[in-house]
Amino acid sequence: MLNRLSQKEHETNKIKAVIYGQDYQIKGKASVDHLRLVALLVDHKMKEIGETNPRLDLNRVAVLAAVNVADEYLKLRQEYEELLRLLEQAQQGETD
Amino acid sequence: MLNRLSQKEHETNKIKAVIYGQDYQIKGKASVDHLRLVALLVDHKMKEIGETNPRLDLNRVAVLAAVNVADEYLKLRQEYEELLRLLEQAQQGETD
Repeated sequence: MLNRLSQKEHETNKIKAVIYGQDYQIKGKASVDHLRLVALLVDHKMKEIGETNPRLDLNRVAVLAAVNVADEYLKLRQEYEELLRLLEQAQQGETD
Repeated sequence: MLNRLSQKEHETNKIKAVIYGQDYQIKGKASVDHLRLVALLVDHKMKEIGETNPRLDLNRVAVLAAVNVADEYLKLRQEYEELLRLLEQAQQGETD
């Protein structure tokens, strides 16, 4: 059942995106929609941080955006592992 | 059972961290260990990107690190949602 969770392999895709006013080419083995969402998320975080701290250098805005996303990523990873344990318990219950 | 997943509220903590050679103060309602891990992850990503692309501007290294973490975050979120569906199905099975 857990096999359904494995990431589907995609071909390499490329998109052009504007992040905080700068042009980037983003590529990855994920759908074009996923890559667009990634760019949008970073752009959004940078704008949020830049608006709250208008005197911050561009590179510090970018680092703090990375910190912000990394914070959410690590929290989600903890919840994901917890959920995995619960699912394994539930599946063991089924087979007992 | 899902209540166990809700994030525990912590007091606001602060740490000093060096990310890609620059000093940052990072604060958040998470443990000091979590904040340190966040800083380490961003530092690691920036070094990885900076070493692969030594001519890249500091701010582009930081933006690409944010893009990289956002990519992993969004993929994990998708897997998390899938796992949640599986768990809900397993729990419905228990009560049927």
